Amino acid sequence: MAEVLQTILNAFKEATSSFDEAYWINKDRSASFPSEYLSKLRELELTAMLLPQSLGGAGLSLYDYLKLVRLSSSMHGVEAGDLLMAYNVFGSLVISNLKSEKLAEKFSKLLIEGVANPCVAITEPQAGVDTFSISTQAEYKNGEYTIRGKKIWITMAANSRLMTVLCRTSKNQKRSFGLTAFVLDPSEHKEVKFSRINDIALRSLGSYEVFFDDVKVGEEAILGERDKGWEAITRVLNAERLSTAAIACGVSDLLLKKATWYASNRVVFGRPIGSNQAIQFPLALCKACVEAAWRLVIEGAKKFEKGENAAFEANASALLASKTAYEVSDIAMQVFGGMSFAVETGIELHWRNARLLRVGPVPEQMALSFIAHNVLGLPRSF
Amino acid sequence: MAEVLQTILNAFKEATSSFDEAYWINKDRSASFPSEYLSKLRELELTAMLLPQSLGGAGLSLYDYLKLVRLSSSMHGVEAGDLLMAYNVFGSLVISNLKSEKLAEKFSKLLIEGVANPCVAITEPQAGVDTFSISTQAEYKNGEYTIRGKKIWITMAANSRLMTVLCRTSKNQKRSFGLTAFVLDPSEHKEVKFSRINDIALRSLGSYEVFFDDVKVGEEAILGERDKGWEAITRVLNAERLSTAAIACGVSDLLLKKATWYASNRVVFGRPIGSNQAIQFPLALCKACVEAAWRLVIEGAKKFEKGENAAFEANASALLASKTAYEVSDIAMQVFGGMSFAVETGIELHWRNARLLRVGPVPEQMALSFIAHNVLGLPRSF
Repeated sequence: MAEVLQTILNAFKEATSSFDEAYWINKDRSASFPSEYLSKLRELELTAMLLPQSLGGAGLSLYDYLKLVRLSSSMHGVEAGDLLMAYNVFGSLVISNLKSEKLAEKFSKLLIEGVANPCVAITEPQAGVDTFSISTQAEYKNGEYTIRGKKIWITMAANSRLMTVLCRTSKNQKRSFGLTAFVLDPSEHKEVKFSRINDIALRSLGSYEVFFDDVKVGEEAILGERDKGWEAITRVLNAERLSTAAIACGVSDLLLKKATWYASNRVVFGRPIGSNQAIQFPLALCKACVEAAWRLVIEGAKKFEKGENAAFEANASALLASKTAYEVSDIAMQVFGGMSFAVETGIELHWRNARLLRVGPVPEQMALSFIAHNVLGLPRSF
Repeated sequence: MAEVLQTILNAFKEATSSFDEAYWINKDRSASFPSEYLSKLRELELTAMLLPQSLGGAGLSLYDYLKLVRLSSSMHGVEAGDLLMAYNVFGSLVISNLKSEKLAEKFSKLLIEGVANPCVAITEPQAGVDTFSISTQAEYKNGEYTIRGKKIWITMAANSRLMTVLCRTSKNQKRSFGLTAFVLDPSEHKEVKFSRINDIALRSLGSYEVFFDDVKVGEEAILGERDKGWEAITRVLNAERLSTAAIACGVSDLLLKKATWYASNRVVFGRPIGSNQAIQFPLALCKACVEAAWRLVIEGAKKFEKGENAAFEANASALLASKTAYEVSDIAMQVFGGMSFAVETGIELHWRNARLLRVGPVPEQMALSFIAHNVLGLPRSF
């Protein structure tokens, strides 16, 4: 398999090298979707890597996929990694857990064709990271569910044809029981409405508020089992966190390369600024942190493949890799000095996107709480 | 004098309260100059606070002015503070050191009328912070100087009618001797050309590259003495650093207020997020740092008024206040979570502008080097 992986990585490197910095800066500035890049992913058959071969996918391992995610973000930044994640985690992993063969086939086709733009809609304005408090509900009547509510910060939502929506189906249940995940194609429901958020991260992909105005779906749309949506979604969310860590490692690679190059070539006071320890040491520390976080990603991927609980690795790697990516971006801002504020230099875009990784998908405070409460066994702090 | 100051501060607070968050967000997004705000400063007679009364100014102390700078940035952000600084440091302080009465009168009028938009052009693409290595030169011939070269990151340059330009006048002199500062009205010289930089900070004021294409000025345009421009400019730069520290304290006030309000009102997991120590303690630390840095600003202002060397206070306060302002902005980003990435929330604008304070006017590495070499007496590191 190592050979197959190397072939994929090489093919990816060659086929996407033409998507240069200017391409991504332009997509960000014009807030336009990277369709050309997505087409290339489809051509390379990378939109259904984790989908089983029985559904037409590549049936690759999470490890192979994560290697590609790191490579893609090391070449193209956070948005490129997020696109791979959307297809392979929110797409492939969701579809392979659908009970309805008909739906699985339908969505697999959209995925492979590169038109699914999968997304997962969990976060709500009021609940925030307190997922069990969501108020979007799905009411059951005569064999169908009616979804009503509002989600926020849903990446690519308006372009999506494969959306997983977490809803409350049983009331008076505060905790995880009573949540149900539904899978639907928003383009088939005019009662799903979108409002684009004018924000400063992932601008090429777009972040949306999504309104569910009595959206009707059949029972076959349930992912996993009714009221047990949290179980169905947890595995997806752990894969999302490992992906985030891989994206963070990738964008750290990218920024370490750029900062190292500039620090080696920018001469002030008669020598390269990179010969100063104040510049060298923080960059060296970041390099050590990236590789350590990456080892946690690999460990998490192995556990995930074996069906073991990879929650610690998922949270810890996302936490550390995101902190590091942001730290590298901050050092790069300082190394490039005034030039880092010029859009064309291509630093500030990564600085903005790397900052988001410390907030989403898992805020560092939640990852720390998980480790403190669930791993160290400290009493709950809230 | 304390009563006069209080009157000024109260009048400012009342007269500028209508310039709300939406005003500054719009100015930033549309990259348009805050002319209405500047008009208000002129009405309040705050564009020539430090100019001697003999020249029509208010003749106030640096301390009074710095109090106003902090207040203005605590209400309106970095750009508002920068505008006050431009008029009162790059304007008032420069003019009061001009030998030519004619020029002093001319520029004082522009300053008081609020049309001077003063700027100081020192930084060059190649020299960066190594000021003594600048290559812009002024050649003397038949009673006039011809300026030739290029400057970068000059705030408000294209709208300026009072520009101080540092040039090399004597060659083969590596260090401070041989530099001369010239004062000119760019609108009178078509050989001064501008190129706006597409950047992410101070967007309402604008940052420019400035090209001097054989610009001719008379001897009366010299600030201080020929070849001793560094001496003439140092006092201005120290006042600029103290101003930067005051701006940083002000924007810290603003962000501490916003973050504290949101943390007290945003309820997740059944209680305000501000009841968590992970949120409280970093904010409390920042409050302590702001007030400590502000004490250094006051100390620096007193020394400055007495004509003493305020270099330590200027560098140390700029260093600490800027670090703190950026730290508060970063915590505010985390406190507001996803919402901090939405432009309308008004956090990300301050986050971008506060980041610049760690780079300009003095990069933190240069402030640290100053303290290490000149105050602690450590050997030069470069």
